[in-house]
Parts: sequence; structure tokens; C-alpha cells
Amino acid sequence: MKDQKMLMGFTLKHLLVLSLALNVGLISRVVYVGEKSVSGLCLENQDKKEAHDSKKSRLVTSTVSKELQNGGDGVIDLDHGDPTMYERFWHEMGEKSTFVIAGHQSISYFSDVRNLCWFLEPEFANSVVRLHKIVGNAITEDRHIVVGTGSTQLFQAVLYALSPPNASEPMSVVSAAPFYSLYPLLTDYLMSALYKWAGDAYEFSKDGPYIELVTSPNNPDGSTREPVVRRTKGLLVHDLAYYWPQYTPISFPADHDIMLFTVSKSTGHAGIRLGWALVKDREIAKKMTNFIELNTIGVSRDSQLRAAKILQAVSESYDYVGNSKETEPFFEYGYNIMAKRWKQLRAAVNKSKLFSLPDFPPGTCTFSGRTFESQPAFAWLKCEGEIEDCESFLRSHKIWTRGGKYFGVSSKYVRISTLSRDETFDLFTERLSAMELESP
Amino acid sequence: MKDQKMLMGFTLKHLLVLSLALNVGLISRVVYVGEKSVSGLCLENQDKKEAHDSKKSRLVTSTVSKELQNGGDGVIDLDHGDPTMYERFWHEMGEKSTFVIAGHQSISYFSDVRNLCWFLEPEFANSVVRLHKIVGNAITEDRHIVVGTGSTQLFQAVLYALSPPNASEPMSVVSAAPFYSLYPLLTDYLMSALYKWAGDAYEFSKDGPYIELVTSPNNPDGSTREPVVRRTKGLLVHDLAYYWPQYTPISFPADHDIMLFTVSKSTGHAGIRLGWALVKDREIAKKMTNFIELNTIGVSRDSQLRAAKILQAVSESYDYVGNSKETEPFFEYGYNIMAKRWKQLRAAVNKSKLFSLPDFPPGTCTFSGRTFESQPAFAWLKCEGEIEDCESFLRSHKIWTRGGKYFGVSSKYVRISTLSRDETFDLFTERLSAMELESP
Repeated sequence: MKDQKMLMGFTLKHLLVLSLALNVGLISRVVYVGEKSVSGLCLENQDKKEAHDSKKSRLVTSTVSKELQNGGDGVIDLDHGDPTMYERFWHEMGEKSTFVIAGHQSISYFSDVRNLCWFLEPEFANSVVRLHKIVGNAITEDRHIVVGTGSTQLFQAVLYALSPPNASEPMSVVSAAPFYSLYPLLTDYLMSALYKWAGDAYEFSKDGPYIELVTSPNNPDGSTREPVVRRTKGLLVHDLAYYWPQYTPISFPADHDIMLFTVSKSTGHAGIRLGWALVKDREIAKKMTNFIELNTIGVSRDSQLRAAKILQAVSESYDYVGNSKETEPFFEYGYNIMAKRWKQLRAAVNKSKLFSLPDFPPGTCTFSGRTFESQPAFAWLKCEGEIEDCESFLRSHKIWTRGGKYFGVSSKYVRISTLSRDETFDLFTERLSAMELESP
Repeated sequence: MKDQKMLMGFTLKHLLVLSLALNVGLISRVVYVGEKSVSGLCLENQDKKEAHDSKKSRLVTSTVSKELQNGGDGVIDLDHGDPTMYERFWHEMGEKSTFVIAGHQSISYFSDVRNLCWFLEPEFANSVVRLHKIVGNAITEDRHIVVGTGSTQLFQAVLYALSPPNASEPMSVVSAAPFYSLYPLLTDYLMSALYKWAGDAYEFSKDGPYIELVTSPNNPDGSTREPVVRRTKGLLVHDLAYYWPQYTPISFPADHDIMLFTVSKSTGHAGIRLGWALVKDREIAKKMTNFIELNTIGVSRDSQLRAAKILQAVSESYDYVGNSKETEPFFEYGYNIMAKRWKQLRAAVNKSKLFSLPDFPPGTCTFSGRTFESQPAFAWLKCEGEIEDCESFLRSHKIWTRGGKYFGVSSKYVRISTLSRDETFDLFTERLSAMELESP
């Protein structure tokens, strides 16, 4: 980890501007070539893309499937953690995960007026508790569940809840580099007086209260994490989006004060925009609820009811284990694909000799009983030797990734999604293994 | 209108604190009696409620149906515009509006990578355009559609899009009183350096750029509105949530730069959390999209697909007009209920002699051909005579409303939802008509 903290000659402001540019621009995934970028926010990234795509004269998209249809030598976009890998599982499951809702259902704003989080659907809450109990990855007893429009909204709800409104200066928000590239943006995009991004937790030396984001397994590098600053006035937020048994051995039920989870990385349903927080303190849960009331007046009831159906289907896929081979249980499916992909990826990296990948210590998973090394949702690839800008190098091979600088570290690193569809991942490892320094 | 602007001896700061308290507290609709309110934000309102409900010793909810089951003399909560009035229509429509989605559908974050708003579902966009064309209430040609998690999120997206990041001071945000009680809160809750609530547009005299919110028909008072400040540096946002033919005569297709609509007030599906903006300027649409990317990484695809089905059902209810009596067209249903309710409400007000309601000029609706007076989603009731605090007065009769001060005007006014279920509305008008100054 330490050797990844190479944010040299690079101010935080630069980082933020670049990071904002990259994320906003890349999330859009639409490249208008020959047309001036209209948003100041994504100008830099657009320009970068335009340089790379200068031969194209009109709107192009980075949809991999489209590109694949066009001959298999197109752009491979692994910049986002778009979890399309899971489509096949849900397709095979068929009707058991189909969601049906009549026109007159869930008309009202209110899901459960008896709950502190009045917009939380009881069915969704129950399915969350049931799944955590089966997997054993988090304590749910004596916790408030706060549902959010993705864990992105919950992250902002936490900042709001933990930052006193009358403080003399904004609350400092830190995370150990390499940190999730969206953290600085989400903290600073509204220029709030309540909180402020204060960078790499390893370098944080300011006195006073602070919020430390502990992402474990970490995005981007997959490492298991603990708090770094460890001072008395620190408030900890555990982002456990990837603490699921397809990615890492479950070693214990997490028991932190504030834990964030998301449907997109557990079952793959990113388009549903749903996350949940397990919160010990009632006042914090209530302030988070207040934030979501103001931000979006609650969370889509349809999404919650559909997610309940999906999470129940995951839980039910374990009811029949040993009795029937009808459906492969969900996390088995996920584990097996991830194992295959990481093997394939490591073989490609070994073959090309231009890159390296982090190693993970083996651990025994209390859920599956297996002993294995983490196989994260992102590959944190390092360009070895002379290649200083790994993102640009890969981009010249039509592989889109997210460079280390957006995560607060050196450009020798890139983050690569391992959650794409099979054909995209196969094409990616094929292209990677054939790569040499001189070409193209 | 002018006589409603009676915000005397009441600073903006007070207003904001109170308004924040009211909204956050009331949105929660949960009253914990004998337990300290945990959120500083809703403390004031909680205290107020506690005083009113001091006889109750434990958790009580304001769910009207529950109260009605308990004998018909319970609390009538008309504080929120919860549009449960529409449940019956959708129940009667049956399967035509039932939404079905398989487990493998809309897994990806991305709805339409070719669209500037990459998280906009094409089906939803098409259903929006089709409905506006049928109703004739807004121009959709040469507009960008930006979808949001309710128009609440779109409102914040607009503030972000219109406020330059490098300005020397925050952009002023104004609206003519009485203004929607959430506007001040949504503008100021994150203490952003980008924008700041500047109060009643009638009293705004500061030089420089500003954003004016024009809500027409207006929430809370149902009036038809035009901009008030009318200076060159003004940026206008038209909130047209209630510009639908069940509430007001459609006089022309609105053709403003930025127009906001929401599913909750058009079809009644508040729990779906979905709104849309029609935006003329590409750069503004792009910045709004950027905001929603950061705020919630897009908008639930499930909600959009369900809303598409709902809006299509509304449009299709007009395909058979004249041919079949099978289904009453949607806006006919809405118009007829609203007409009945306003007649009933005006009769109750006339009977009690304690209150007055605004009058609306008759207009001819280009959609229905009918000439009628507006029949808004909220009644803007004034307590006449000696009653100075209309909200408290009604609360003493177990009718929960939202007082004028939260809308920037006198406490003699209250806003009352007219969109409840039939039995609640009947009970409300019955109680109102029997009201006398002395009791209780």
C-alpha cells in the first residue's frame, strides 16, 4: 500500500479538478468529437478523449457490445464497475426473480410511518436482514436500516449527519490512498460549509474532528482495510460495498458504527440505484433520514420492492443447497466467475510482462468454508518499467481504465473493472496478454 | 396575492429554521411522545407536536386510515400533498398499468449512452413527450429531457447548473411569497457556497445575478404566476408540477427555458420518486445531468420503466374516448374528483364562516374544452376574524395542515392537501363545516 502513495507534484486541487472531470466525463460515456464539451466539469476529460478518438468524426459511444459487433477490435471500456457480469445468473434464474407491481400500488410517499426511516419498505428491510444473516458479513441486531438511492446518496447522508451545522469550520473528510475516486467529488461538489475533503488519511495531521472513510475490501485496490488516523475525535464510516463472498473471504460479521452496502455490487443491479446503511446510533440514522428527505423525499418504493424480490431470491437460492441442483446458489456463481477471471487475468499479466497485480493473503471464508485469496471487483494494475502513465498506455490499446491519480496515487496504476460481460472480459485479457511495449 | 405577503416581525433565519423544522418533522410523520427528538432539525416541530399529543404515551402515527378505523374522530393529516386520491383510478384500471420486470433487466448503470442524459430511459422519454403532446401543456420540441429522483432532485440540479462555481458570492435564489415551503430548505440545507436562499421575490432588491422560481399554478395558493423580479440578470426556473388539466385550465403549451414536472402530481405516483425537466439549453441540461451523476449516479431505471408504463396508460386512456366507456380517461377522473372536492370544500367554508378561500378566474382549457376555475391540489385557507394562528386552531380540531409562515406569509393562512383518499377528505370537510370559534 505504502508504495502506492505517490501523489508527487500534484496538488489536491489538481486532483479534484481532474477527478471531477474524469468521473463526470466518463460516467457519461458519450464522446462528442469535433464538438466543444459543454460542461466545464468534463472539459478536461472530453479533450483527452477527443485526442484519443480524433479520427472519429461524429458521436461515438463506448458500448462494448456495440463495438464487439463491429469486429471485435473496438474500445473496451472497463473504467466503471458496471456489473453486467451478473446478467447471465439472473437470466438463468428466470421467473423467480421477476418483479410485478400493479398500477395502484405504492402511490403514497410513505412506506412505513412507524419506522424512523419512514420511506424504508419493510419487505426490503427484511430481505436485507435475512441476507446478512445467511452470509454472516454484518451484524444487523440493534441497528437502524437507512435506505438510500445507491450508497452514493448514503455517503452524502452520512457526511450531513456527522457534520455539526454550527461548527467554526467544515468537518475534514479523509480516506487512505488509494481511495475511491468519487469520495473527493461527492464531498466537495456543492462547496458545502459543513464538510470538506482533506485528502489521504495517511497524510492527515490536522487537529480536531474528522470523518475517516474505511473501504474494505478497498476500491480500487481490493485490500482489506482498517482505520489509519486513529485519533479520539475521529468518526468512522465503513464502506463495505465489496464485503461479499464472491469477492473476498468473509472473516467475521462486521460490527462497525456506520456500515454502507449497495445492491449494485452485491447482486449486480446497478440500474436499480439502491443501497442501505446499518447504523448503530439512532440520532445519526435520523439525521441521515432527514438528508434523504430533503435530497430526494425518500427512495423509490418500486426499486425497494424489486430489490426485496432480488435479495429474497438470493437467500432462497440457499434453501435448496444439497437438495437440488436446479439453481446454482448466487454467491457460488459469483465466486466461480471471479475465480476464473482472476486466474485468466493473472495469466495475461504474466504473459505480457509489462504489468503487475497486487497479491492477497489467503483467508478462510466463514460463509463458504473455502480458503481463497481475494478476487476483487476491480483489478489494480501497475505498469512496470518505463510506462509512467498506465491509463494512456492502455488507452492507446483501446482499453479504457481509470488512472491512479484519480485515486490519489501514481499514474503508474490503473483501476480496471472485472465485472463486465464475459465476452468483454475475454477480449480484454486476450488483448492484455498480447501487449508489448513497442506496439502500437 | 399582495395581501398574503405579511411576513412581519419574522426574520428570514427564523423562517428557515422553522420551515426546516416543519418540513423535516412533518415529512417524518412519526411522533415520538415522551422521547426527546433526536434531530436538531426537527426539534422545534417535534416539541410542538408533543404539546398537541401530550395525552398519548407512546409511538403514534398519523396514518389517517388507521385513525379512521379507530372510530373516525382521529387526526386528519393534510399537511403533505400525498396523492392517494389517485389510488382508486389505478385500481380500476387493473392490469393495463401493471409493470413487470425480469431479474436480468436493467442491471447496468446505463440507460442510453447516446443521450446527453445517459441515465434517461428512452421509453420514459417517449412517454413524457407523448403525454405532453396529448395534453398540450408544454412544448417538447428542441428540448433536452433530464430525468430526476423526483422534481426535488431536479430543483437542486438546476441550482447547481445555474450557479457558476467561481463566483465571488453565492447565487441568490428567490420566489414570490407565498412560495413552496421546501424551496428555502433545499437551497440552504448543505450551506453551499454556490447558491443561497434570498427570500420573497417581491422584496428582492440586490444587484447581480439571481434565480427566480416561478411555480404556476403556485404551491401553496394555486395562483397562476409570472416572474416578479424581471431584471436582466435573472435566470428563471418554471416549476409546473401542477400544470395539468385536473387542477387548472390548460391555456397554452408552456415554452420556458427550464420547466420542471413530476409524476407524483400528474399521475399520483409519489412513491415512485420521479420527475422530469424540459430544458432548452444544452449546457444547462448537461450540468443538471452532471449533478444527478454525482448526487445519485443516475435515476432508478425500474422507476422510469414503471412510470413509462403509467404515462402510456394515461395516454392510451384517450385512444378510446368516444369509442368505449370501458375506462374513464385519466384527466376526466381527476377533473371530476377535484371539481366535487372543491365544491364540497367551498360549501364547508361557507357554512362555518370562520374561513375564506381564494377565488380563481374562469379559463377555457384547450385540452378538455371546458371553461372552469382552478381547483388546486392544495387549498390555501385563511382564518378570518380573531384567529391569528390558523394552523394551531385547526390542529386543536385534530386537522394537521401547514401554516402560512412556512411559505413566507402570515400565520392566518394554512395549506391543506386536497389529494387525500375520499374518506379522509369527506371527514375533513365535515369537521370543517361544523367548526365554530368557541369549540374546543
